[in-house]
Amino acid sequence: MAALDVFLREQIAAFEPEIRAMADYCIDTSGKRIRPALVFLSGWRGHGTPGSDLIKVAAIVELVHLATLVHDDIMDGAALRRNRRTATREFGATAAVLLGDALFSHALVLAAQYPTTEVCYMVSESMRRVCAGEIVQTMRRGSMDITREDYWRIIELKTAELFRVSCHLGARLAGSDAAYVADAARFGRHLGIAYQIYDDLADFFGDERRIGKTLGTDLASGKVTLPLQVLLEQLPAGERTALTEEICGRRPVQMGMRLRQMGECAVFPAVAATVRDEIAAAAAALAKWPEEPPTPLLLELCGVLHAQLAGLEPATAGPRA
Amino acid sequence: MAALDVFLREQIAAFEPEIRAMADYCIDTSGKRIRPALVFLSGWRGHGTPGSDLIKVAAIVELVHLATLVHDDIMDGAALRRNRRTATREFGATAAVLLGDALFSHALVLAAQYPTTEVCYMVSESMRRVCAGEIVQTMRRGSMDITREDYWRIIELKTAELFRVSCHLGARLAGSDAAYVADAARFGRHLGIAYQIYDDLADFFGDERRIGKTLGTDLASGKVTLPLQVLLEQLPAGERTALTEEICGRRPVQMGMRLRQMGECAVFPAVAATVRDEIAAAAAALAKWPEEPPTPLLLELCGVLHAQLAGLEPATAGPRA
Repeated sequence: MAALDVFLREQIAAFEPEIRAMADYCIDTSGKRIRPALVFLSGWRGHGTPGSDLIKVAAIVELVHLATLVHDDIMDGAALRRNRRTATREFGATAAVLLGDALFSHALVLAAQYPTTEVCYMVSESMRRVCAGEIVQTMRRGSMDITREDYWRIIELKTAELFRVSCHLGARLAGSDAAYVADAARFGRHLGIAYQIYDDLADFFGDERRIGKTLGTDLASGKVTLPLQVLLEQLPAGERTALTEEICGRRPVQMGMRLRQMGECAVFPAVAATVRDEIAAAAAALAKWPEEPPTPLLLELCGVLHAQLAGLEPATAGPRA
Repeated sequence: MAALDVFLREQIAAFEPEIRAMADYCIDTSGKRIRPALVFLSGWRGHGTPGSDLIKVAAIVELVHLATLVHDDIMDGAALRRNRRTATREFGATAAVLLGDALFSHALVLAAQYPTTEVCYMVSESMRRVCAGEIVQTMRRGSMDITREDYWRIIELKTAELFRVSCHLGARLAGSDAAYVADAARFGRHLGIAYQIYDDLADFFGDERRIGKTLGTDLASGKVTLPLQVLLEQLPAGERTALTEEICGRRPVQMGMRLRQMGECAVFPAVAATVRDEIAAAAAALAKWPEEPPTPLLLELCGVLHAQLAGLEPATAGPRA
């Protein structure tokens, strides 16, 4: 990870002088670096440190991710991200649109430095799918006809896609055989789904300081995620109608009450079970490959997510509102 | 161009089903297709129709251009583009950000279909430079300390860059030798600068119906372009201060008067001379190559721009306000 940070720092110089400080601001986020970690772990050959090929791909997936965050924050009108001002607030929405574009472009400049076009192809196709997922999510904001299948499709595109590609490229560049690359990619896809559902759960049950945003932000912005779908199914008809009106923006959101109802309706255990199912599916994708060096490391990530999920579990009946 | 339209239509199917209609809307603009024309002309070998390699690169540069237009229109808050509703107005700013991203991603998916990474590299680097130019322009809005050098740098990045790459890739894919590729690229760069200055002139002297937007939009949005720089230099001190305040947004823009002053101060001939200088520089870049098949076709483009410029020339002393 230190090598990745050095490499990312070095990339600043590649940007046009006028926008270096801004690119620096965006890259200098103390993010979780999950996608680079997936690259490194999937590409682990059992010895040594990651080679320059892996570091570069780790930087590429992180830059793509950072670009989508910059654009996300514009749309959400978010003021803070990881407890610092978003690019939108710092430079204005207009510059933030372009800055996201520049980050993404530079990711592709790096992708074009491999001997074949494979990295370019996978990264740009993946990016298009991520965008498609976010577009669907955006167009459905405040709309109540989102089925579980729709929710699944959205998170598969917007989150699981880049997790999948990170694992695929890590294993591929390390020279793993095609069958392992495919299974590592399946692992990444399921882990991405699990992670996004966990993240959606944290929006209602997390610790505000730790997740760096206000609880219930998704609900307030009309985003119908799994915890909300479960709550809607559990509520009596009258309450369901009221909540529907809140989601559609026709009446103010009763956040305190909704968070309390989430506790009463056992939303947490229901959604957490889904997260665990996806983690299990991720682990199952690697079941055939216990001997491959990345396998134990990737399974450890499953353990980390399990622990994070457990840390979210409300001590009392209700969420930490 | 018909083959390009067919190819672009076919690309719609490559987008995720949920966003096809939106991608279709963005691609279905009756644009001028200048950049694809540069690809085809630079890649002309004296016989036959453009091969699939050229058509694909023409589609790539057009998609990149369309992506930047979609993002531009968000920032300008523009309602109309080429006399139809912008993507921002049609789908909302949020979806438009993502849609631009998806168009750009797909351009790179196509670029990754060439045998080497050269097209990916040139297109993504070019895109980053285009964004940098637009960022500089954005950050300088309403600011009066823009020198002529700053203006030049902005248009070199935001417009001339993609013109340059279009000519480079056209000549390159047609198998021209490296010296001709470099000169074709130089031609494209100068033509791009000439075209952008012409376009900035049209903002004050154009026909509203033909250019599809309100005269003086740049001035109203605080964008300091060459015609405005020339006007500022010509105005007496008191008037200059007043115009400065209008550009900074500290008082309402006196559009009628400013357009009239442009006529009185002979802004048109001064700026038109600069356009003609750049057209001449473009032509000079090809002076060594009269026998190369693309040369006469590219020089014809210079003639077209000359004619467009002449068509803009005010019949009377003042602009067509």
